[in-house]
Amino acid sequence: MVWRGQGTEPEGVSRFYSVIPAGGIGSRLWPLSRAAAPKFLHDLTGSGQTLLRDTWNRLAPISGPQRIMVVTGRAHRAAVEEQLPELRDENVVLESEGKDSSAAIGLAAAILEKREPGVIIGSFAADHVITDHRRFRQSVVQAIALADAGYIATIGIQPTEPAIGFGYIKTGAPIEVAGAPDALAVDGFVEKPSLATAKKYVDAGTYFWNAGMFIARADRLLQQLAKTQPLLVEGLQELADAWDTPNRGAVVDRVWPTLAKIAIDYSVAEPSAKEGVLAVIPGDFPWDDVGDFGSLAKLQSGGRKSDLAILGEHARVLADSSSGIVVSETGRLITLIGVSDIVVVDTPDALLVTTSEHAQRVKSVVDALKLSGRTDVL
Amino acid sequence: MVWRGQGTEPEGVSRFYSVIPAGGIGSRLWPLSRAAAPKFLHDLTGSGQTLLRDTWNRLAPISGPQRIMVVTGRAHRAAVEEQLPELRDENVVLESEGKDSSAAIGLAAAILEKREPGVIIGSFAADHVITDHRRFRQSVVQAIALADAGYIATIGIQPTEPAIGFGYIKTGAPIEVAGAPDALAVDGFVEKPSLATAKKYVDAGTYFWNAGMFIARADRLLQQLAKTQPLLVEGLQELADAWDTPNRGAVVDRVWPTLAKIAIDYSVAEPSAKEGVLAVIPGDFPWDDVGDFGSLAKLQSGGRKSDLAILGEHARVLADSSSGIVVSETGRLITLIGVSDIVVVDTPDALLVTTSEHAQRVKSVVDALKLSGRTDVL
Repeated sequence: MVWRGQGTEPEGVSRFYSVIPAGGIGSRLWPLSRAAAPKFLHDLTGSGQTLLRDTWNRLAPISGPQRIMVVTGRAHRAAVEEQLPELRDENVVLESEGKDSSAAIGLAAAILEKREPGVIIGSFAADHVITDHRRFRQSVVQAIALADAGYIATIGIQPTEPAIGFGYIKTGAPIEVAGAPDALAVDGFVEKPSLATAKKYVDAGTYFWNAGMFIARADRLLQQLAKTQPLLVEGLQELADAWDTPNRGAVVDRVWPTLAKIAIDYSVAEPSAKEGVLAVIPGDFPWDDVGDFGSLAKLQSGGRKSDLAILGEHARVLADSSSGIVVSETGRLITLIGVSDIVVVDTPDALLVTTSEHAQRVKSVVDALKLSGRTDVL
Repeated sequence: MVWRGQGTEPEGVSRFYSVIPAGGIGSRLWPLSRAAAPKFLHDLTGSGQTLLRDTWNRLAPISGPQRIMVVTGRAHRAAVEEQLPELRDENVVLESEGKDSSAAIGLAAAILEKREPGVIIGSFAADHVITDHRRFRQSVVQAIALADAGYIATIGIQPTEPAIGFGYIKTGAPIEVAGAPDALAVDGFVEKPSLATAKKYVDAGTYFWNAGMFIARADRLLQQLAKTQPLLVEGLQELADAWDTPNRGAVVDRVWPTLAKIAIDYSVAEPSAKEGVLAVIPGDFPWDDVGDFGSLAKLQSGGRKSDLAILGEHARVLADSSSGIVVSETGRLITLIGVSDIVVVDTPDALLVTTSEHAQRVKSVVDALKLSGRTDVL
């Protein structure tokens, strides 16, 4: 089986390691996504496999399946291993408690750098949808060349519409690195903009969606992280030193609770952009983070507003002039009459009814449930 | 316990017998109403008791509880008897198969006339909502006076709005009968009108809603029925003759399948109106047939459009700026976000999502389910 080396590729590809942080629950997809069944364990595309498995299938041809590390919660170990039977034992990193992306990716970097100095890692969310594996691969390979040259690299997505639910990457001048002909400097990051601003960004052609993909030499990533979070890196190094020894458990128990909880966007990406060491490869593949049921409906219907998308292996739906999306996790008969742009999510213990327009507010409901202690359905 | 005789009442009241045909499923209230749990076995008012029990409680003070006959399907016997522990065995008439209202009411008339010649019967649906028992009683007492004078009497409801879901009774000149000061002749019946026509009716003040209440001497009712359905009456007489004998079962098995299936509105009421023997007492009490979830929502919210009504003993609903009605027959958490005038009916094996506006189309879904053989949820 040939996993790598289609034609001439940068040498760095042979030192590439994929990292999949599989942590987020996906609260805006509640009650489908839950603590016990997070978004990455669902088949949201109707492909017949989970988003996690899709992610694996996308990365295996780049790094090889033996070079993929998954960082996930203890509670998800069994489900992850069931999804990924090829996943090597030593490539499962279990978090005793979620500590956000800096700790998750930083720990992977520290462990891999210790095992294999000079390793290049690429971190990709476990729950995004990318259908064009070939073009994805081409972008990653360019990003690897950038990483090998010392950059913290990211892949920005060429916006197809003025989305207000994503962060944007502002690009600057081209960067000259062999093997990365499309590389651009990153001038900065912009948080979710207003619609008017998003329109300007799309028209300008110099802004890309931030898809949270980071590719870097592990040592460089830790160096950059140490500049803003020295204590965190200290803890991660301590963990990495003990990781492949009998002391792992004791050190984890002692150090893990002390780790700072911060997104890698803030601890590494933004500061690196300011420093001029962050570079971006514009990705021209379709990408979706399936952030809420509105985007899920859109993804499922291929953008046709008049369609009713149905998700669920055992879904039984009878609809009369209705549009939107039905997600069925029960075998119940679901009947819709004259409802437009509706979102119906039917699970054994919780039902959600909303519209595509209001789907983003699902997270606030989850927050309300948490506050009121009704955690049985979360 | 004094059940009858508040002040001076027409002598006919002492010969009055209540009849409750409890047959209709209430398809437009599916999936709440079902073959196994028809509308009359539900508490739709939040009163804590079923519509059937409400009906009983309304009639018992008029006829006395020992003089109420219930005509229902064999499948509902146990449920009916549980709801009405006072119901006498000889007052339970079980249909082996639904044969519409002419057969149900006609059989009650024939049985009661045989037992007690000269009896006056009043037939009232088991699944309507009437909250003012005192005014209802006053109308029935007047109707009894009309019946005793030989009329087929009905109680028409003074319309409160130009409803298009009801039939209308067109009234004529006053009728002079002692004990029935409000009586009017009936000039005819009008099927569900257009909105424009309904508005004219309401403005005219001479049209009343047809609530399907009929009060008549049993012998007169059968006479009128025999004019349009002689074979049906022949069958009913044969059944009545055998009813209180050991032959009942054999005669039922032989005769029942042959009975014509026709609504009493067509077989008796309309022809009697043409003949000039139908009279109406205008009823000035609030009445609702709770025909669909739209009217249920209205009934529940007291007409306030912005409200979300919740029905169901174990309902758990979390709603964020939503209006309409939720009917919960499960203990599931139901979450609504930003949906207006919504109808959500959550039962263990079927879920309905529609709007008040489209709630009338529920019946067509039930028809579609029947046609496709998915009767498990009906």
